Amino acid sequence: MRFLHTADWHIGKQLHDYPLVTEQWDAFAQLVKIAQVQHVDAIVIAGDVYDRSMPSAQAVTMVNQMMRRLNLDLGYPLLVISGNHDSAERLGVGRSWFKDQHFYLNTQLSQAFTPVMIKDTQFFLLPYFTPHDARQYFHDDTLKTMAQAMQRIVAQMQAQFVDGAHHVLVSHFFASGSTRTAAETALEVGGLAAVPLDIMDCFDYVALGHLHNYQALHYPRMRYSGSLLKLSVAEAPQQKGVWIVDTDPMQMHFEPLQPLNDIKVLTGSFVELTTQPPVLPNDAFVDIELTDQQPIPDLMNRLRQTFPHQRLVAVHRQHGLQKLQPLDHHVTQHLSPVALLAQFYDDVMQQPLTKAQQTLAIHSLEQMQKEK
Amino acid sequence: MRFLHTADWHIGKQLHDYPLVTEQWDAFAQLVKIAQVQHVDAIVIAGDVYDRSMPSAQAVTMVNQMMRRLNLDLGYPLLVISGNHDSAERLGVGRSWFKDQHFYLNTQLSQAFTPVMIKDTQFFLLPYFTPHDARQYFHDDTLKTMAQAMQRIVAQMQAQFVDGAHHVLVSHFFASGSTRTAAETALEVGGLAAVPLDIMDCFDYVALGHLHNYQALHYPRMRYSGSLLKLSVAEAPQQKGVWIVDTDPMQMHFEPLQPLNDIKVLTGSFVELTTQPPVLPNDAFVDIELTDQQPIPDLMNRLRQTFPHQRLVAVHRQHGLQKLQPLDHHVTQHLSPVALLAQFYDDVMQQPLTKAQQTLAIHSLEQMQKEK
Repeated sequence: MRFLHTADWHIGKQLHDYPLVTEQWDAFAQLVKIAQVQHVDAIVIAGDVYDRSMPSAQAVTMVNQMMRRLNLDLGYPLLVISGNHDSAERLGVGRSWFKDQHFYLNTQLSQAFTPVMIKDTQFFLLPYFTPHDARQYFHDDTLKTMAQAMQRIVAQMQAQFVDGAHHVLVSHFFASGSTRTAAETALEVGGLAAVPLDIMDCFDYVALGHLHNYQALHYPRMRYSGSLLKLSVAEAPQQKGVWIVDTDPMQMHFEPLQPLNDIKVLTGSFVELTTQPPVLPNDAFVDIELTDQQPIPDLMNRLRQTFPHQRLVAVHRQHGLQKLQPLDHHVTQHLSPVALLAQFYDDVMQQPLTKAQQTLAIHSLEQMQKEK
Repeated sequence: MRFLHTADWHIGKQLHDYPLVTEQWDAFAQLVKIAQVQHVDAIVIAGDVYDRSMPSAQAVTMVNQMMRRLNLDLGYPLLVISGNHDSAERLGVGRSWFKDQHFYLNTQLSQAFTPVMIKDTQFFLLPYFTPHDARQYFHDDTLKTMAQAMQRIVAQMQAQFVDGAHHVLVSHFFASGSTRTAAETALEVGGLAAVPLDIMDCFDYVALGHLHNYQALHYPRMRYSGSLLKLSVAEAPQQKGVWIVDTDPMQMHFEPLQPLNDIKVLTGSFVELTTQPPVLPNDAFVDIELTDQQPIPDLMNRLRQTFPHQRLVAVHRQHGLQKLQPLDHHVTQHLSPVALLAQFYDDVMQQPLTKAQQTLAIHSLEQMQKEK
């Protein structure tokens, strides 16, 4: 069989106050196209469907429409788990009705041990969980780490393995390191929160969600799909996409998604960026890395004027912001208020007060004296 | 056919900070029992399933379990609409999958014109809506009032009536008055927000939600079911229950629910209530109507001590709280601080300072003088 592996949709997410609704619908449409062109038999969504445990009504409607389109309109079996960003309770509403249409949704650890058989493959849908959940489920207080919990969980899943079938695990956690690594190293690599990779060796494929970079893991037959979109400036260089996985023979290839409105990172001085601004597509998200260190008055407004058709998400200072030199007290105590203001202005703005500004300053100070 | 008509479950509601989870599960169990004993063919829930548009995860889980029990475990067709307390978007999640199991859930006006046929009866499920929704749906800006909107809605429903079938409307609004009433009277009775009753005469039965008193309406073949529980002290005298409705011949009877923990309203003076307290069942909700007018120190704690196994929801003053007589300035300005305190204490407490209190007062005042 052949399935599409995606995760980390984060519906409802905003990029620095800019909603991503249009971008998410566009990426979803590309995903649908890929599913159709690749003739997949099922679609796997490995958690973080929503961005927040308390999603907005708009996000709820959006996810409902997306699931309806994939499952009811297009007839794809859906294999979905909750991630750490989802509320298990909220996402889980209706799951008992969904399975009649081959929409399999797991949000509780206890549900993970009933595999879903599609064609030649058994899917184990293991939602996001904590060692605490595992201790409760197994009534075993010795399960302190994710590694210990996963060893128990995988053993119980293996007991359900049907001979001759392929076995796929769908899950949502930080996978890293090995049980064979020395304890100190394991702690360095991922710590007690990481699931060692070799615990999952018995599966033919592990479809993971959690990390947003699809290249985050280098291990055979185990992949993060990465997120549907670039969800932060840090993800700007990443290629986004989905995995197409074949079970017989087991192989996979990555199908890229093209961002509708990309994140562009611009680096340069304020003068460079505002006098010779690069030509950017309309609606691009722009992150600016300024090389200047001095304060620049009205910075955000002036940058917005330079890129009026783009969306300015953040401005950073590559080399930090210059600290003002403290004024010499022995000098300043003998300065008149107007002279002191003039010196401060010069320090900050790197230019003297104009004649008009000077007149205004003198007038304002006189006014204040009178009001006293 | 025979169906059960309920509404206004308000899952998630608290009674003055006391959760009603246990009481709501108990009422639900009674409702299930009634459905079974009465051999109903379907269950109608006429809105306000939730108490809030943003229900807690616990409330979401509870509603999901209740619907699963009725629909999937017991096999009852469910006919559900959203009320003004529900979020149409949140309640509506999954509806497209539910109908395969005869769980019909409408949360948008546009969905109301596809009737559900069960046995001999067409059900029209009209969720809570506003005149604004009607203007948008019909592209008609002249629909200003609920009466105007409902006339259009009912006409469109009538166009779908199947001859020989019975026709039931399920809805959630304030129904009152008549289109034949003079405009001024109509405004007095319910105003522009009320739906005149005779507009709905073409239906064999109208199953309403919104008002919590099942006796709120006196009109043939049109009923509020009332709420599942007493949801406020004002509802303490009301009998709660559900309607069992037969379509052929059209008739109905009310099946009462017994409150697990009732709301008890106690009236009397503080002394009466605390010296001769009535015997109340454990876990009862207690509302106290005090006849006293004077201030009573540490009132709530002393009442809680009197009713340690009950839940005190509120204390009211039947005759208001006595206003303190303003002290006569000509007198008070000549009083010493201790004398002034003594007079104030006497006014409020209706008794003089004790010797010990007087000593304490004098000592405290001296201390303050020294610290100055």
